[in-house]
Amino acid sequence: MKVTFTQAEIASIVQPTRTLGSASEPIRGIATLGAAEPGDISFLGNLKYKTSVPSTRATVVLLPNDYTGTPASGQLYVFVENPSVALARLCSRLEGELWPKPLPGIHPTACVSPGAKVAPTATIGPLCVVEHDARIGEGVHLQSGVFVGHGAQVGDNSWLMHGVVVQAECTLGRRVRLHPGVIIGADGFGYELVAGRHEKVPQIGTVEIGDDVEIGANSTIDRSRFGLTSVGEGTKIDNLVQVGHNVVIGRHCMICAQVGIAGSCTLGDYVVVGGQCGLAGHLTVGSGAMLAARSGVKDDIPPKTSVWGSPSLPLLLEQKIIILRNRLPELFKRVEALEKASAPKG
Amino acid sequence: MKVTFTQAEIASIVQPTRTLGSASEPIRGIATLGAAEPGDISFLGNLKYKTSVPSTRATVVLLPNDYTGTPASGQLYVFVENPSVALARLCSRLEGELWPKPLPGIHPTACVSPGAKVAPTATIGPLCVVEHDARIGEGVHLQSGVFVGHGAQVGDNSWLMHGVVVQAECTLGRRVRLHPGVIIGADGFGYELVAGRHEKVPQIGTVEIGDDVEIGANSTIDRSRFGLTSVGEGTKIDNLVQVGHNVVIGRHCMICAQVGIAGSCTLGDYVVVGGQCGLAGHLTVGSGAMLAARSGVKDDIPPKTSVWGSPSLPLLLEQKIIILRNRLPELFKRVEALEKASAPKG
Amino acid sequence: MKVTFTQAEIASIVQPTRTLGSASEPIRGIATLGAAEPGDISFLGNLKYKTSVPSTRATVVLLPNDYTGTPASGQLYVFVENPSVALARLCSRLEGELWPKPLPGIHPTACVSPGAKVAPTATIGPLCVVEHDARIGEGVHLQSGVFVGHGAQVGDNSWLMHGVVVQAECTLGRRVRLHPGVIIGADGFGYELVAGRHEKVPQIGTVEIGDDVEIGANSTIDRSRFGLTSVGEGTKIDNLVQVGHNVVIGRHCMICAQVGIAGSCTLGDYVVVGGQCGLAGHLTVGSGAMLAARSGVKDDIPPKTSVWGSPSLPLLLEQKIIILRNRLPELFKRVEALEKASAPKG
Repeated sequence: MKVTFTQAEIASIVQPTRTLGSASEPIRGIATLGAAEPGDISFLGNLKYKTSVPSTRATVVLLPNDYTGTPASGQLYVFVENPSVALARLCSRLEGELWPKPLPGIHPTACVSPGAKVAPTATIGPLCVVEHDARIGEGVHLQSGVFVGHGAQVGDNSWLMHGVVVQAECTLGRRVRLHPGVIIGADGFGYELVAGRHEKVPQIGTVEIGDDVEIGANSTIDRSRFGLTSVGEGTKIDNLVQVGHNVVIGRHCMICAQVGIAGSCTLGDYVVVGGQCGLAGHLTVGSGAMLAARSGVKDDIPPKTSVWGSPSLPLLLEQKIIILRNRLPELFKRVEALEKASAPKG
Repeated sequence: MKVTFTQAEIASIVQPTRTLGSASEPIRGIATLGAAEPGDISFLGNLKYKTSVPSTRATVVLLPNDYTGTPASGQLYVFVENPSVALARLCSRLEGELWPKPLPGIHPTACVSPGAKVAPTATIGPLCVVEHDARIGEGVHLQSGVFVGHGAQVGDNSWLMHGVVVQAECTLGRRVRLHPGVIIGADGFGYELVAGRHEKVPQIGTVEIGDDVEIGANSTIDRSRFGLTSVGEGTKIDNLVQVGHNVVIGRHCMICAQVGIAGSCTLGDYVVVGGQCGLAGHLTVGSGAMLAARSGVKDDIPPKTSVWGSPSLPLLLEQKIIILRNRLPELFKRVEALEKASAPKG
Repeated sequence: MKVTFTQAEIASIVQPTRTLGSASEPIRGIATLGAAEPGDISFLGNLKYKTSVPSTRATVVLLPNDYTGTPASGQLYVFVENPSVALARLCSRLEGELWPKPLPGIHPTACVSPGAKVAPTATIGPLCVVEHDARIGEGVHLQSGVFVGHGAQVGDNSWLMHGVVVQAECTLGRRVRLHPGVIIGADGFGYELVAGRHEKVPQIGTVEIGDDVEIGANSTIDRSRFGLTSVGEGTKIDNLVQVGHNVVIGRHCMICAQVGIAGSCTLGDYVVVGGQCGLAGHLTVGSGAMLAARSGVKDDIPPKTSVWGSPSLPLLLEQKIIILRNRLPELFKRVEALEKASAPKG
């Protein structure tokens, strides 16, 4: 992929509040402050790296409005409200080159049921399977090897990558992006023990994925026992996440990698779940709650509450207890000293 | 999917011990007690929801035999031994509509080796690959994009969903259900460090899956170094579970999502492993043992023992220690107070 | 798979330092010491099993040079420097039978872009997709259902199994082995919250996998925001592992199953990460560091350091604290006793 930006393009995309210095080279690459070479654009996205700005060799540097400093000769400082967002918007243009919009149409190797409804602007890539009564919206792109089961729906402008599975009757909203290996609508895990055998509880519900949801590679969202498993508009889910049957996730949540959410949990809006967290079944997590990485949650969490630990506690309490736990060797010695001091002299 | 049940059908499927009241509407849906509308059937599966029964708007309610209460006008109470099982059996009929039995035959896009043996009643869906010497039993359904390697066997009436992989020489029993993305028989993780490089230990054994096993989406069961990795009859495994090489899992176990079982572990029968547990290699877990969610196990577990924690302890001890851990701030204060009290006055 | 070894073959493969006794049967199987029958070869790979050697019924036993003992009648002891390595080399020959080298060529059902470069000795199996500008090296084997995106490269003699995805512009070195369901180059997890919505940070970098890397089933390696996510030469990764964007993993590391490595971590060479560990973002782990299973790491780890726990501590300290934690019930009683003793009498 070739990166090329003129200064005019950069300005039109990032809308700078002001600039300082002047760039002497066209932009041909993007790099971190430390790794940048002349010809690169870089950015200060995390104040941790502030001290790297003066020494960066980047030709253009995106900086927050309140940064104070002077560019080197041939170097341009571009001030913006949020350098990370500014960079993301520059990268959006490049993303279009990495993933050029494919031509509409159905690849000859795809197996599309005559009973499926495929919008004329959709692209069905090679070796996809679309079953009867499935509906594929306008501008949808099924990359290749994608399976869409009977009665399932894929909303307009959604993008399903290689090997994604949308089982029967599940529905995706608009602009949904599913990375390779995502499985929507496998059976939830439900059995009844009858006479020494686990009798299957059929999972006859479905999954509903809202608009603008993105789900990472190899994550799995199970269909409900009956009714719906649902993921709200704008929620983002990372790789290898498990969402159990009948879970309801609100809007604009962030679910990091390898999280497991057991059946029938309800999450509000703007919930953040750190990597490798686990939630027991039937919990309610209030809007704006934050679960630090690797938390194991077994009780409801009120809105706007931060928790940590396994089993989880309020964040500040867990932080305190971790420190005290690490002082257990000292505590045992102190108790021993007290015991010696209080022992009857002999 | 259309839900329709007459009262006669419900009675013939759930075999009620008695009924109370009379229903005025045909059944067109299934819902929880709280969400049900007239026309729905609901059930009391968890006593936690007992207080929702009097106010439910469901037309038919499945109740345990010892429930006492009076239906509303136009409402029918149906008493059964286990309402969850009764509902599961009703849902089984609907499941047949969700997943209608496909016609036997091999889809023209499937690649089936002339050296494979496919039973005449089996269905090989689109874009499947079946290699030479593979054997596909009677009534088997390979949904689509399924891979069955050379010498592998799929037992009668098994159902492998999109993208399932059964590598060479692995065998599945009868009525095995594998959800999308399950990988049977990838290499176990074994190396020997020789002269600074990890030299591969070839994994030339296989995997044997028993009758009536169900495995959830994207789970992985590794082939053994030599000999067998095996999963016993009737065992159920959830999504994103990892089973290492040479593991032997007994019959009728329940392995919840995201569990990891390291190589050469042996689990007895009826073992329950909660979500996100991890087992170190070469452990023996006795029959009927129960591992609470997120346990990290590094020692053998005797039969019928419950453990929790990481590293795990007997369940009751871990519960006690968790409470005491949370009281560490108090304990430090108490020790400080004792130290002050015992300090020489001056 | 048929196992057959003559004594001469065994000797030529394992290069014994000496032998003792004489075998009366040809070798037809491989088994552990305890399970072996006459006709099997076995080995003492772990000193834990030393006491099983005298009673093993194996016809040939691979033993470490310093083992002292006498074979039974008709039994051959073969002494080698490392019996596990010796067995691995024997198994390598069998592995060639399990996975015979396929004939070169492109299967008629594969979709290979005319703009892709496929070496004449490569094998492209059924239902694979190779996009334009992709390069497939000499001796490469794409098993089936493999996807290689535009501009991606697969180095000589690499082996990609069913359903592997290598997204656009990612590169694999030579002799890379990717098990089924591995996803290389899905988007990293990056968003900026703008006006209440998570705005996508495009992930326009790539992934670079070094020579001799092996990655287990359903693991995911995300493409970088820009620049590279990379896995160094000779590193081995187990199943269901998540490697975030911009992570740099050194050479000859071992990453066990279900590990999660958050974005922008840097691991040195010969790092060992136990199963189910999690690393927070932007950490540096020094060469030769060892993370015990289920560690949760949130701080940098110096080279050659062993850690354990979550949040992790130096290994020996964590071991000590775990013991003390388990003694909390006792400690509370001791403090209570001190309090009683120091209470004013009355």
